[in-house]
Amino acid sequence: MPKEDLVNLALRRSLFYSAAEIYAGSPSGFWEFGPVGEKIRRKIIDLWRKELVEREGFLEIFGAQILPEAVFKASGHLASFADPIVQCKKCNATHRADQLIAEKTNGIVPESMSTEELAKLIKQHDVQCPKCKGKDFTEVRKFNMMMKVDIGATGQQPCYLRPETCQSIFLDFPRLFKTMRVQLPLGIAQSGSSFRNEIAPRNTLLRAREFGQMEIEVFFNPKKINEVPRFSEVENYKLNLQTLKDKSPRAMNCKEAVEKKIISAKLIAYYLARAQQCWHAFGIPIEKMRFRQLADDEKAFYSRESWDFEVETELGWVELIACNYRTDYDLAGHAKESKQDLKVKEEGCEEAFIPHVFELSAGIDRTLFVALSLALKTEKRGPEERTFMELPPRIAPYLVGVFPLMKKDGMLEKAQEIEEELVSYGLDVFFDEVGSIGKRYARVDEVGVPFAVTVDYDTMKDGTVTLRERDSMEQKRVKAAELPLLLWKLQNNKIKFKDI
Amino acid sequence: MPKEDLVNLALRRSLFYSAAEIYAGSPSGFWEFGPVGEKIRRKIIDLWRKELVEREGFLEIFGAQILPEAVFKASGHLASFADPIVQCKKCNATHRADQLIAEKTNGIVPESMSTEELAKLIKQHDVQCPKCKGKDFTEVRKFNMMMKVDIGATGQQPCYLRPETCQSIFLDFPRLFKTMRVQLPLGIAQSGSSFRNEIAPRNTLLRAREFGQMEIEVFFNPKKINEVPRFSEVENYKLNLQTLKDKSPRAMNCKEAVEKKIISAKLIAYYLARAQQCWHAFGIPIEKMRFRQLADDEKAFYSRESWDFEVETELGWVELIACNYRTDYDLAGHAKESKQDLKVKEEGCEEAFIPHVFELSAGIDRTLFVALSLALKTEKRGPEERTFMELPPRIAPYLVGVFPLMKKDGMLEKAQEIEEELVSYGLDVFFDEVGSIGKRYARVDEVGVPFAVTVDYDTMKDGTVTLRERDSMEQKRVKAAELPLLLWKLQNNKIKFKDI
Repeated sequence: MPKEDLVNLALRRSLFYSAAEIYAGSPSGFWEFGPVGEKIRRKIIDLWRKELVEREGFLEIFGAQILPEAVFKASGHLASFADPIVQCKKCNATHRADQLIAEKTNGIVPESMSTEELAKLIKQHDVQCPKCKGKDFTEVRKFNMMMKVDIGATGQQPCYLRPETCQSIFLDFPRLFKTMRVQLPLGIAQSGSSFRNEIAPRNTLLRAREFGQMEIEVFFNPKKINEVPRFSEVENYKLNLQTLKDKSPRAMNCKEAVEKKIISAKLIAYYLARAQQCWHAFGIPIEKMRFRQLADDEKAFYSRESWDFEVETELGWVELIACNYRTDYDLAGHAKESKQDLKVKEEGCEEAFIPHVFELSAGIDRTLFVALSLALKTEKRGPEERTFMELPPRIAPYLVGVFPLMKKDGMLEKAQEIEEELVSYGLDVFFDEVGSIGKRYARVDEVGVPFAVTVDYDTMKDGTVTLRERDSMEQKRVKAAELPLLLWKLQNNKIKFKDI
Repeated sequence: MPKEDLVNLALRRSLFYSAAEIYAGSPSGFWEFGPVGEKIRRKIIDLWRKELVEREGFLEIFGAQILPEAVFKASGHLASFADPIVQCKKCNATHRADQLIAEKTNGIVPESMSTEELAKLIKQHDVQCPKCKGKDFTEVRKFNMMMKVDIGATGQQPCYLRPETCQSIFLDFPRLFKTMRVQLPLGIAQSGSSFRNEIAPRNTLLRAREFGQMEIEVFFNPKKINEVPRFSEVENYKLNLQTLKDKSPRAMNCKEAVEKKIISAKLIAYYLARAQQCWHAFGIPIEKMRFRQLADDEKAFYSRESWDFEVETELGWVELIACNYRTDYDLAGHAKESKQDLKVKEEGCEEAFIPHVFELSAGIDRTLFVALSLALKTEKRGPEERTFMELPPRIAPYLVGVFPLMKKDGMLEKAQEIEEELVSYGLDVFFDEVGSIGKRYARVDEVGVPFAVTVDYDTMKDGTVTLRERDSMEQKRVKAAELPLLLWKLQNNKIKFKDI
């Protein structure tokens, strides 16, 4: 499904759209999610929470988005969270130097390249300004992407909007480890917004200045990186791995990947497997996924081992999760800067140590965008074309539409009664009584609602309703009273529609 | 329950705590919510969404937190969203001038008071610096509370963190009205964070610099402010109203309040009633609530009629919801500044008009704080004291604890099976197998979990479990297989524990 079709649908149905769009010249890279988009976005976070956070026994926090300068001094962001930029001397437009070169050469420009090397490449490849075609640029300089906010009446307390949600996790770890009756390995998760002053926001939700993250930091004893009790659950599960030596991904089970030292330890393989399973639950086909190993000049300097979880789309491979073995970099940095002892002791061990961290840092809006673009389908049915979104029930904006066939003869009231009953059991219902049934089906199909219940004359006689499935468009007759449990089972894939 | 007890519990169980607390000198007014606090906070938003947003057929959006300068020029924030401040000449501490006077005189200082009048009162009442007791202050000046963020490499796009979530609602209204098949009255809701550079953050969650809001803006045709089809549902519902003439609140039903012109219109009375019902569902007793009418010098200049929904706590009356009849102030302002026509037409009407707006602007963290402080109870039981949190099931962090009596003889596995079953039906479960059953009960009681299921030897024989209620500590024997529906009914108050 071409990206344009998704963007058109997004605008037509207000799934997402630019912030402050009524104002000409509003800065790009800020997005609003309309009612249906907001619901899908929330469901994505809920599924991640259920599958990757709660099922693993991890803790979740909700932290401040503004944090003091000291935090980012310790994290290294103040010193090194910067993009190389150049300005066109003719039209004054600012560009990312590495992107200009990458676009001109169709190649990858390593993050570690110096400003001098970049300047040389710009000259060498005869790079033009994309805006005015000028070839005269200023020097390449580093531009810090942090957004500064001054707190206090005299701005005496310099703070920053977080560029990633995980710093709160590192800051809160010592307290949570002490107060929450937990042991290592301990995962702490947070979902929320992060902020980066991107020079060139683009591809709608894929590179924004304010964007959603779902991050998990797993704290563990580095000596026990191969002690993973539940590893047996994933040892035969196949990951799509693309190492530095590979040209394309190949499927390999976790056990083999660890034994062959393609993945350095069981703990890392275990969480890569859980991540792949979770993103598969978002409806992303396994064959479109890969974990791409990052080379030293591509990965963050503090990371001992990095895998980017990427999904193939018509825009190329899109990174959805950064998986980094961050070692003790973060806690050691905060310990030094805050002058606090952040070492912990494990039960039965004498020695205190700073835990190591393995991270799964995922993008919410990127996941949303990729999941929608892979789910959007058009299908010829005779002379007509049908558009529908093949979203898994758990991330659909509503689980079920409830439609009275007509507003008369008690059908409206009966349908409302069913709606209320389903809502009281925590199910998400979209009620619609306007237009023909066919049009109502088409409207919910387009935004991915997997099931629809129609209340008709038979309902008034025998208490049964029509239950329709979005993908097959098949219909079954079921008892209204059985809907709550039946729909929960359909949502959780405990029963298939064809087996009803 | 004294505030100190709640704060102690919050720190001991990590419900909430200061952001970046490992760093000395981190700015105040920024908070983190730990695992249990985050869950309660999320449940509060969910309940508001179900009861006030979805039940009313309103739309919800998720908008950008950073918006361009033009938005806040139009909204009036740049010109007037300011607090009066003074600096002590001796110790350089900055204070809010109106607060210094209010504390000294035990009175209320109107928001409309000029800086000159405030300076005069400071002199007149011989106000001292709370920090150093100095009496020599700088001039009173207005300090804008907006937090500025520069976007773009050369900071060429001045933006601000939103000081309230509702501006996105006004900006998105024209698009949603066009694309969402809706009619007036149309409510649009948003929950999320807002940011105000408060000079004196205090009372923990009650006045923070980054804080959560749940806002609803109802757009309507001002000619139809008394056409409210569902008014009959609330006409006999009693509101606790305290008008400008009253010294204390008095209960009056919606019908009477409108007929006596105490509330100016049915639409306003209707939503005040819905708000009171929703906050009652948070567990706040009706007798501790009031809607206090604001005088002209206390309410925002754009508001035609303002009621503050307040709750009585040991810290005094705390405002939880600002209810404002904002007229067409916001849409007219954005229409002028953006040069867009934001008028709408209603079906069957010729004339285009700018809708009026009635707003329910609620604080998430304030609601959380007040709900917890009213719910926290201690009870003498013989020689022992028991602490428990009487939270309604719908905002409890978990609905149910699941405890195997022992880890042996299959009880652990059986309990895990029950946990998984309940989770698959969308219920929130806390699993605990550590320590005595009594201690496990005490731990969940303290954070408000309303029910607990214990798996014991009888479970292994006949499939029944013990179901215990937090408040009464009574226990019933129920079939494990019936738990999912039973717990949903208990959560939604469709059945009472004593009637099982």
